[in-house]
Amino acid sequence: MGKVTTRKRKEVSAANALVEATASLLMERTSLDVSLSEIAKRSGFNSALIKYYFGNKEGLLLALLERDATLAMDALNRLIEMDVSAEQKLRIHINGIISTYYRSPYLNRLIHYMIEVPNEAASSRVEAIYIHPMLEAYRAIIEQGIQEKSFRRVEPAFLYHSLVGACEHLFYAAYYVRSALGQSGITEEIKQRYIVHVTDMCLLGLVDR
Amino acid sequence: MGKVTTRKRKEVSAANALVEATASLLMERTSLDVSLSEIAKRSGFNSALIKYYFGNKEGLLLALLERDATLAMDALNRLIEMDVSAEQKLRIHINGIISTYYRSPYLNRLIHYMIEVPNEAASSRVEAIYIHPMLEAYRAIIEQGIQEKSFRRVEPAFLYHSLVGACEHLFYAAYYVRSALGQSGITEEIKQRYIVHVTDMCLLGLVDR
Repeated sequence: MGKVTTRKRKEVSAANALVEATASLLMERTSLDVSLSEIAKRSGFNSALIKYYFGNKEGLLLALLERDATLAMDALNRLIEMDVSAEQKLRIHINGIISTYYRSPYLNRLIHYMIEVPNEAASSRVEAIYIHPMLEAYRAIIEQGIQEKSFRRVEPAFLYHSLVGACEHLFYAAYYVRSALGQSGITEEIKQRYIVHVTDMCLLGLVDR
Repeated sequence: MGKVTTRKRKEVSAANALVEATASLLMERTSLDVSLSEIAKRSGFNSALIKYYFGNKEGLLLALLERDATLAMDALNRLIEMDVSAEQKLRIHINGIISTYYRSPYLNRLIHYMIEVPNEAASSRVEAIYIHPMLEAYRAIIEQGIQEKSFRRVEPAFLYHSLVGACEHLFYAAYYVRSALGQSGITEEIKQRYIVHVTDMCLLGLVDR
């Protein structure tokens, strides 16, 4: 029994190390182009373990997305339960999305890749762990805002697309920003100013007049 | 002389046919995954001509983007010159972006791919034909709106990112929409409703109070 538990623990830590190594490599890239041997090398484990735990690179990327989506959804659920106004919840949410993309710019690439990958099981999983809970959270915030007479009625899925699209577009390519704002990349200052811009646009756009 | 002109014309028409075949194949796909032999077959020309005219698939994709971006920028420039309010210009612009993505969902994939491709020359070209003129147009519309006292002052690059991001996010994966709105894909009706949503959010968000 003790042996089994120890082996299980070792397996979890090797699997985690592989997911962690993938995340740290993707942080340094502008695409999902990372090889299994690079991941193995960074993790300190043999690349055969990737096949063993995750089947292939797609399975490993899905595991990384599960890890990140679970953290994000836990935070979103805590936010929904908080005793603050719908407006304040949206402010915190927008800050959260943009800050997450600022820290982990690979995240939206990963979500789009997983959704577009011709693998029905992976797409359904992303829908279950990410899209559905997200839409439920939007529905709850909008209903609260309508009751508080601070929001007009909008379609949750439309608000989701327009808001998340706005948040993530800045991070597609640091190139845009270099070109548009004369900066070498997205700085902490640009990130903060963009949070203010998106928050203002969104909250003004939702005002019930 | 006559011979040269005829040959030139034939070359232009073969090159156009290859670009057109690429567009029509990408319209049917959810990724940029299309092979040179498929393109050659669809166009009716030999795949060796792709190498001859465009160097490689990247060159062909860039030619397609140039074609589409030029059309889009011509339309945008005509819009800027029109004798209507800044608010009306934004309405027409948003309708134009969303309708373009509805017709040609490959366009945003293409822009992001070209910007992120590790090819400085291609990225600079996209910047010149697409990003710069776009930002100039935004600057002009915002200035006009401020003079007409209908818009508050916002950073053109931020408005560009937040608005284009909002417009294109709906088209990333029909999957989202299936999941969120119970439709099998983006219908004409959903497209129209989304135009209204994004236009309202944007114009309310810009109101100068």
